[in-house]
Amino acid sequence: MGKKMKAIVKHERGYGAELQEVDVPTIGDNDVLIQVKATSICGTDVHIYTWDEWSQSRVNPPYIFGHEFSGVVIDKGANVDRVELGEHVSAETHIVCGKCPQCLTGNAHICEDTKIIGVDTDGCFAEYVALPQENLWKNDPNLPFDVASVQEPFGNAVHTVLNGEVAGKSVAIVGCGPIGIMAVAAAKAAGASQVIASDLNEYRLDLAKKMGATTVINPSEEDPVEKVKSCTNGHGVDVVCEMSGHPVAMDQGFKMATNGARVSILSLPVQPVQIDITNDIVFKGLTVQGIAGRKMFKTWQQLSGLLQNGSVNLEPIITHHLSLEDFEHGFDLMIQGRCGKVVLHP
Amino acid sequence: MGKKMKAIVKHERGYGAELQEVDVPTIGDNDVLIQVKATSICGTDVHIYTWDEWSQSRVNPPYIFGHEFSGVVIDKGANVDRVELGEHVSAETHIVCGKCPQCLTGNAHICEDTKIIGVDTDGCFAEYVALPQENLWKNDPNLPFDVASVQEPFGNAVHTVLNGEVAGKSVAIVGCGPIGIMAVAAAKAAGASQVIASDLNEYRLDLAKKMGATTVINPSEEDPVEKVKSCTNGHGVDVVCEMSGHPVAMDQGFKMATNGARVSILSLPVQPVQIDITNDIVFKGLTVQGIAGRKMFKTWQQLSGLLQNGSVNLEPIITHHLSLEDFEHGFDLMIQGRCGKVVLHP
Amino acid sequence: MGKKMKAIVKHERGYGAELQEVDVPTIGDNDVLIQVKATSICGTDVHIYTWDEWSQSRVNPPYIFGHEFSGVVIDKGANVDRVELGEHVSAETHIVCGKCPQCLTGNAHICEDTKIIGVDTDGCFAEYVALPQENLWKNDPNLPFDVASVQEPFGNAVHTVLNGEVAGKSVAIVGCGPIGIMAVAAAKAAGASQVIASDLNEYRLDLAKKMGATTVINPSEEDPVEKVKSCTNGHGVDVVCEMSGHPVAMDQGFKMATNGARVSILSLPVQPVQIDITNDIVFKGLTVQGIAGRKMFKTWQQLSGLLQNGSVNLEPIITHHLSLEDFEHGFDLMIQGRCGKVVLHP
Amino acid sequence: MGKKMKAIVKHERGYGAELQEVDVPTIGDNDVLIQVKATSICGTDVHIYTWDEWSQSRVNPPYIFGHEFSGVVIDKGANVDRVELGEHVSAETHIVCGKCPQCLTGNAHICEDTKIIGVDTDGCFAEYVALPQENLWKNDPNLPFDVASVQEPFGNAVHTVLNGEVAGKSVAIVGCGPIGIMAVAAAKAAGASQVIASDLNEYRLDLAKKMGATTVINPSEEDPVEKVKSCTNGHGVDVVCEMSGHPVAMDQGFKMATNGARVSILSLPVQPVQIDITNDIVFKGLTVQGIAGRKMFKTWQQLSGLLQNGSVNLEPIITHHLSLEDFEHGFDLMIQGRCGKVVLHP
Repeated sequence: MGKKMKAIVKHERGYGAELQEVDVPTIGDNDVLIQVKATSICGTDVHIYTWDEWSQSRVNPPYIFGHEFSGVVIDKGANVDRVELGEHVSAETHIVCGKCPQCLTGNAHICEDTKIIGVDTDGCFAEYVALPQENLWKNDPNLPFDVASVQEPFGNAVHTVLNGEVAGKSVAIVGCGPIGIMAVAAAKAAGASQVIASDLNEYRLDLAKKMGATTVINPSEEDPVEKVKSCTNGHGVDVVCEMSGHPVAMDQGFKMATNGARVSILSLPVQPVQIDITNDIVFKGLTVQGIAGRKMFKTWQQLSGLLQNGSVNLEPIITHHLSLEDFEHGFDLMIQGRCGKVVLHP
Repeated sequence: MGKKMKAIVKHERGYGAELQEVDVPTIGDNDVLIQVKATSICGTDVHIYTWDEWSQSRVNPPYIFGHEFSGVVIDKGANVDRVELGEHVSAETHIVCGKCPQCLTGNAHICEDTKIIGVDTDGCFAEYVALPQENLWKNDPNLPFDVASVQEPFGNAVHTVLNGEVAGKSVAIVGCGPIGIMAVAAAKAAGASQVIASDLNEYRLDLAKKMGATTVINPSEEDPVEKVKSCTNGHGVDVVCEMSGHPVAMDQGFKMATNGARVSILSLPVQPVQIDITNDIVFKGLTVQGIAGRKMFKTWQQLSGLLQNGSVNLEPIITHHLSLEDFEHGFDLMIQGRCGKVVLHP
Repeated sequence: MGKKMKAIVKHERGYGAELQEVDVPTIGDNDVLIQVKATSICGTDVHIYTWDEWSQSRVNPPYIFGHEFSGVVIDKGANVDRVELGEHVSAETHIVCGKCPQCLTGNAHICEDTKIIGVDTDGCFAEYVALPQENLWKNDPNLPFDVASVQEPFGNAVHTVLNGEVAGKSVAIVGCGPIGIMAVAAAKAAGASQVIASDLNEYRLDLAKKMGATTVINPSEEDPVEKVKSCTNGHGVDVVCEMSGHPVAMDQGFKMATNGARVSILSLPVQPVQIDITNDIVFKGLTVQGIAGRKMFKTWQQLSGLLQNGSVNLEPIITHHLSLEDFEHGFDLMIQGRCGKVVLHP
Repeated sequence: MGKKMKAIVKHERGYGAELQEVDVPTIGDNDVLIQVKATSICGTDVHIYTWDEWSQSRVNPPYIFGHEFSGVVIDKGANVDRVELGEHVSAETHIVCGKCPQCLTGNAHICEDTKIIGVDTDGCFAEYVALPQENLWKNDPNLPFDVASVQEPFGNAVHTVLNGEVAGKSVAIVGCGPIGIMAVAAAKAAGASQVIASDLNEYRLDLAKKMGATTVINPSEEDPVEKVKSCTNGHGVDVVCEMSGHPVAMDQGFKMATNGARVSILSLPVQPVQIDITNDIVFKGLTVQGIAGRKMFKTWQQLSGLLQNGSVNLEPIITHHLSLEDFEHGFDLMIQGRCGKVVLHP
């Protein structure tokens, strides 16, 4: 009989999850077994936990969820030549097909046939996780495990911010969830002239300020478009990172963009959004980008480099450290928005 | 008393225009007087002629309209050093401020304070037109005057098509007004693997085919998204040029785009458009571009180069040649969509 | 005992090669066995055949050389899921490591640990060749086998030409070996305003003209820099594709480039080259690119697309069709430069 | 009789210069008169001062030299509408033609017919300077005059560093003259993972360290290629900024670049340089860029933005403040290399 481990299992088609004792996963020739040292809760995990409409249509309980982590390689299959036992690793969450036109041209992050770890396969809310070697990212052994765990969502932020020029440019971060806050840090570290952050949640605006925002805006208190214009001699910002998913905020994002600006959208609005294409996109000559995942593995190189630069410190974003057993408290914090990143330690 | 000339004057705030005898314009130190040899009717001119809502809010009759032309320099101000008497010229339609951040960084086509010739100033539906030397583009003296006149709208097409990679890529042109048809020619000449054109108007689909479309789609007869997918092994096209302005066509444009595609929008929808940002932009990693005017003067260099290459022949797009006096017939043709480009000869 | 096949074997460390009967290669789980239908001779093969200095330091006889081919899949290993039996294929020549920073960021064409088919491993001058599935490119079954075989060197040409903007730009092709001639075709098909080709060999200048060169220059008869300037109003060309490897031609290439031009170098000069960095690169603001191999697989998509466009016809470049047994005649033609591409049919 | 002012005049065709009393310059309709508050000495000024070969062939004494400055607008011509009296300004040094293909496409920094302030026209080593309004850059009135003066050479550094991606990438600065040192600061502020600086002069390596270099190399003490490789897991750096002009350092720069790297050259070697094109450029797939001046005015926007970000502090680079009268001491410091930037205060 196999070895056992603790894991947070999405046990049934309904609210919540259960801590269970399950088999340690077995590995194939191309796989690696990793001892999880830290694993952080993503907004996607909250969707799965609260069993929202999207989850109901996508995931198949029972299974282990979770996809952000760091750990140590403790076993590997016969064909594995990318990592050694004992190396520190995290993982890219997208398991891609390798055959579609996107995969064949260095754009695997928009593979036409992607599986997501912890959504479509067993994930990392557990003591151990098994993954194909192609998905691994080697961590500097000096990088703390908790910081290493949040590299994946930091990657979303970095992909969004660095998907065009930033140095010397004005940047607005619309929506300050954990990834928005990390985007503030990335923009600042990449040389933005100013980083203007907006959100309705004062707790998160405080975090944004701590991470380097030069101006914070609470749209319930002032008009974000007017405020951004007043910070930019009336011209508007050069770069907008849309991370709110809210149609009003999105509309304001387009209106605060200067002519020729870049608007990079990472958020996933639940409904179609009305856009004034003529005035907000065409006449202004905007570039609007959909941002999916992380470039494989360019984004990982960029985020590692920004951490190495030293001007990004992700520690203040990790506001809570809990044991794996305390996962319900972690999810409650996330649901209430009274946190930055919550890290679980198996 | 000054010399007189014939001109088509938007004479009052209402439908139509009048052929009048008016003064030949005088020129300042920095201006050039041009004898107009050919002048073509733009969709914008039709808006002004039919006195639609946009025109009512923007233009101030009485004034001479028209902005597409070619002609010969016959007089110049004291400070003019860019052209000589006798040179053949056309003109960029945007008169820009030279001072805003866009003008100061080589992006004058999205100047924050643009005036448009024939909209905000007297235009070229006349025997003579006076223009600042900065707006002139020198034509090859061997280029026929009618082809030279339609370079300006061809520039819109070229700006849209060439605002990203085209060679070896599949391109869809959504909407086959005259600029759409010219975009077909530009994409073909720039090495597109296939050029798929769609429109409801069979007359224009025939023109698109003549200009090099490899597939034409009439959305009243078949599903354009399905058709595009069937032409591209199910993947969708690499580049979509949106030139219809119609919300349904626009939505289809997003859906026929492959993951990572570029969608370049030149059209000006009259209402905000509902867009499924999550599925059609973010997950697909699309790049959506607003296309305004022509890059000054990169687009003019590109369009001249494409004409020089020899694989673009604009003659078939110029379906009607009329005298200036026959302008009403020209506008009727445009309103009915029974034409490509209509050129007036003063 | 295994099945036998004919193959051209580099049999010893010296001039020439031998037609031998050898074992049909066996395949591993990830490999594909291909029946070779056409295989073309590359300049690299000539180096190996004539046993030049580079070959002596790189290749290890006895082995089968050759790397340009097209064929049909006749067997595949257990893990192969990218191709089916009967499919027409060619192959990317670089076998890459998959682990280095370049491979991990979509730049496998400059992998730090590349093996080259037919140089470092057994090649395709044979009736059959075995290859890893990752290297295969599926061909349109309607593409003639001989044209399909020369896609690989056409890919070098396409990579060089399309590594920046081409449409509407003036292009000089310096050196008209087979790849230079194919570069002429690629530039023309991608919308270059003019394509100026230079070489000392009149036979090849004739081929260049046939493939679309608008001007050809024999530097033994006229000054190529002067000629290029006279074709471009004194400004010089926008793009230079250096394919000669000759220091004098290379120097002229820099001097015929206009300010801000792109100089893309595919050639491999055998000695270091003296460059006037200050006047020819810095003051002019040039961009100089080293071009290695073909982007995997972006270049293959581009070249397929250009073939689909229909404005590139590679047939005239294939000047000789020989049986595999006649390889010595093929190599003689290549050595004398009295040919375009030479295709061998096993 | 006109008002008089003090100015440093290159008085004759030989070593040195003279402080003279000369007429305050008069202004044309398009010009602005500026009271100079700070003016810094450039390496080019040293060439003129020491009367080297280049100077002998280019400049025509007697005239006022100097081109780096900041000041206040005190008079303006009739047509000036870009600045107001009292505004703080510096100036772009290139006076461009406005008519060549480069000027017409937003690439005025490589204008074919450029005049340089203080080289081809009277400069700013004086109490007042007259300049065309097109060359002015408005300074934040809170920016200290000395820092504002060194924006022009900082612009060279910024143009070099930001002419491609930097955030998260490893950067080597080869040559730590004042611009090299400022490039260290720019790279660090733009998010480079590490900034490796090399020079033979320990004084300047100390400055480089102060400005953010993570590693400094004195090539007289260790092999810079080996050292760079050891800092980058053996791969080499992603970006090389060549600022030494020395053939050996340049060769090392190519060799320390990783496959696919960018090598941006700002330096002006006095002789042609031997380059191993095959191994150092082609096989590595390098991009080599000539960097001329500053993009007009994109570079100025970028450098202003980096200053606004707050992570670049140029104060430590300004090692000496002298009165205009003490110019000879300033030039001596520059000749000896015992300084960063030397600022003169009229």
